Amino acid sequence: MSLIVQKFGGSSVADAERLRNVARIITETRKKGHQVVAVLSAQGDTTDELIEKAAELNPNASKREMDMLLACGEQMSISLCAMAIQALDCQVISLTGWQAGMLTGSVYGNAWIKNIRTDRLQRELDQGKIVLVAGFQGINKYDDITTLGRGGSDTSAVALAAALHADLCQIYTDVDGVYTADPRLVKGARKLEEITYDEMLELASLGAQVLHNRSVEMAKRYNVRLEVLSSFSGKPGTKVKEVVKNMEKTHVSGVAKDKNVARLALVGLADEPGIAFKIFSLLAKNSINVDIILQSIGRDESKDISFTVVRSDAQKARELLEENRDYIGFESIEVNDKIAKVSIVGAGMVNNPGVAARMFEALYGVGINISMISTSEIKVSVLMDERDTDRAVQAIHDKFYPEFGTAL
Amino acid sequence: MSLIVQKFGGSSVADAERLRNVARIITETRKKGHQVVAVLSAQGDTTDELIEKAAELNPNASKREMDMLLACGEQMSISLCAMAIQALDCQVISLTGWQAGMLTGSVYGNAWIKNIRTDRLQRELDQGKIVLVAGFQGINKYDDITTLGRGGSDTSAVALAAALHADLCQIYTDVDGVYTADPRLVKGARKLEEITYDEMLELASLGAQVLHNRSVEMAKRYNVRLEVLSSFSGKPGTKVKEVVKNMEKTHVSGVAKDKNVARLALVGLADEPGIAFKIFSLLAKNSINVDIILQSIGRDESKDISFTVVRSDAQKARELLEENRDYIGFESIEVNDKIAKVSIVGAGMVNNPGVAARMFEALYGVGINISMISTSEIKVSVLMDERDTDRAVQAIHDKFYPEFGTAL
Repeated sequence: MSLIVQKFGGSSVADAERLRNVARIITETRKKGHQVVAVLSAQGDTTDELIEKAAELNPNASKREMDMLLACGEQMSISLCAMAIQALDCQVISLTGWQAGMLTGSVYGNAWIKNIRTDRLQRELDQGKIVLVAGFQGINKYDDITTLGRGGSDTSAVALAAALHADLCQIYTDVDGVYTADPRLVKGARKLEEITYDEMLELASLGAQVLHNRSVEMAKRYNVRLEVLSSFSGKPGTKVKEVVKNMEKTHVSGVAKDKNVARLALVGLADEPGIAFKIFSLLAKNSINVDIILQSIGRDESKDISFTVVRSDAQKARELLEENRDYIGFESIEVNDKIAKVSIVGAGMVNNPGVAARMFEALYGVGINISMISTSEIKVSVLMDERDTDRAVQAIHDKFYPEFGTAL
Repeated sequence: MSLIVQKFGGSSVADAERLRNVARIITETRKKGHQVVAVLSAQGDTTDELIEKAAELNPNASKREMDMLLACGEQMSISLCAMAIQALDCQVISLTGWQAGMLTGSVYGNAWIKNIRTDRLQRELDQGKIVLVAGFQGINKYDDITTLGRGGSDTSAVALAAALHADLCQIYTDVDGVYTADPRLVKGARKLEEITYDEMLELASLGAQVLHNRSVEMAKRYNVRLEVLSSFSGKPGTKVKEVVKNMEKTHVSGVAKDKNVARLALVGLADEPGIAFKIFSLLAKNSINVDIILQSIGRDESKDISFTVVRSDAQKARELLEENRDYIGFESIEVNDKIAKVSIVGAGMVNNPGVAARMFEALYGVGINISMISTSEIKVSVLMDERDTDRAVQAIHDKFYPEFGTAL
């Protein structure tokens, strides 16, 4: 008998029919002899509707009251799903975040899970019950309800799997796994059977919206075996774990694009120590996250530094830097927010120096100009004009997956 | 500085505009220097909508899961109202039933309040905050959410007022007080300034749907001063308390009708001891509540017993009695479910023997036949053909309130 944690997102529980489907998946797992803890999100658009109601009354409402309101969405999901499971004659109990012992920090709206008191969960499981837990929520030291922020239900599920030493954490969603590229956009994109935590982290941060990074990081830290699969198809999904069995063969597990990028270039900086520190500590203090950083080689006693931020931060970053022009010392700032980032991710890449070259070859083949390159152990990212991204992803994918089934 | 508990029903918080109105009432009370605890119901039809969603998934869902679901309605109300109060720049905090220390028995769907742990409530009040509490809900010894059943939010409010030793418990509703008769039906009906708990109890049980009996009983037991008033009109309402100041003058505080009545008559019973016991213990064992009981004077060694039940129980009562005909021993049963009860209620009645006579005179004056009479210390009830009730109420009201302002 295994203990399996299953997580179902908002679209998987959006209406009565889908709730019945989820109830069926859960009870079938139970009837195979496994213990089941299922974490549910709020139904469909419930959270957005509640946010709208709140905004109508007070656009600046306290986050404590927002959490009080939003937590109802998941509480409604779990109780309704419990009823659907009762209709299938299975023993079940639903638990809110606080009933499930989900202890968090006290930051409302974006709380971190500190600890899970599993005694009640364990007691209910020992009685043979399916346990449904409200995702996305917990309780802080003031006995107040908190929510975990974006991707919160994934994080709830992984944290529960870690705390209960579950054998598997299945993340049910509306896609049936992790693909080598977005299957809606790229011809020949195929589902991966397995992927490592690190690759998944790179893919998630690159805009493949399958799993939230926070939950993958937690899964990696506590070595929770993840599986991403569809609540609609019934097919096996993609397993996420530390080491994948055919890693030697895998060079590239995915191609991803991210259009939410702007590039800033500071031109004519003095070629002296401390410049980078001045720029990036200033941005960090103002909560602007920087992604790729490139520094040109110094020439004529001056150098240039370029970096990327999310587009919504570009204007703020420019203003900050302008205000501190004397402190930093530069000639001009250039901002380009019509660019995008295309990346390939693969755990085997570091041992295959030809991988980056093949990517550049693919782009050259379709005449796409690269404006910035950044590489890491498992990733190569390039910046390009945002109008070129879809063509770029297809060309790269075609290069690494020239015909079905060869790359894996 | 007084401590005031205010309760707002579902129609008072039905939408954003009404929530803003409630927020205004609460903050105005606070700004007058009072401490305020406000108990809220779920918005408008929320509870019914949730019940409907549940029924679609499982008409036989467990009550534990129903309570888990329904409790969200009040939780959404209080958080939204807190946001509206924040928009008016007042310090406020919303608390669920369990956060407010509302400890109940373990019967789901109809839990009784056992105790209120007021430490958190008191702490928040001491910090100068308005405290909003989710009505209708509590927590049982299993750390599970319970609901209090019909009229639950009124009961929550009165229980909080008792536990916190509040100076006043205001029940805001969609009528602006307790009237001498239903103002939608009776010309000349007027609002009472004050009424006793006992009169209120009789009126509530007679179908004047202003306050739930359970909350009035609790108010009487703990001597909580109640006021029933409208959240829309802004006018003073009706005060409910132990002794009203002009009790000597008050003969009749209200005229009420109840059409949810059926009369059963057992004819030809043996005139011997134990017959009434047999009949009414049989009904009680089968959870049939009996209201008025009348026994004819024995004649020719036989007697008749008539009694009233709510209409939905009439058929079941008849079948039960038929099945036990030999045990009880009677000739025949007559059932009449086209009757209604009209009553007058007044604390001063017992010292004014002419009151019942005036009621009968009023009915005689409009030619209405009375089929049964029952009297108590503060009430006279008569049964009549249900088609006569509206005329009867108007005639009785006209008799006791012949012109404006004379009876009080």
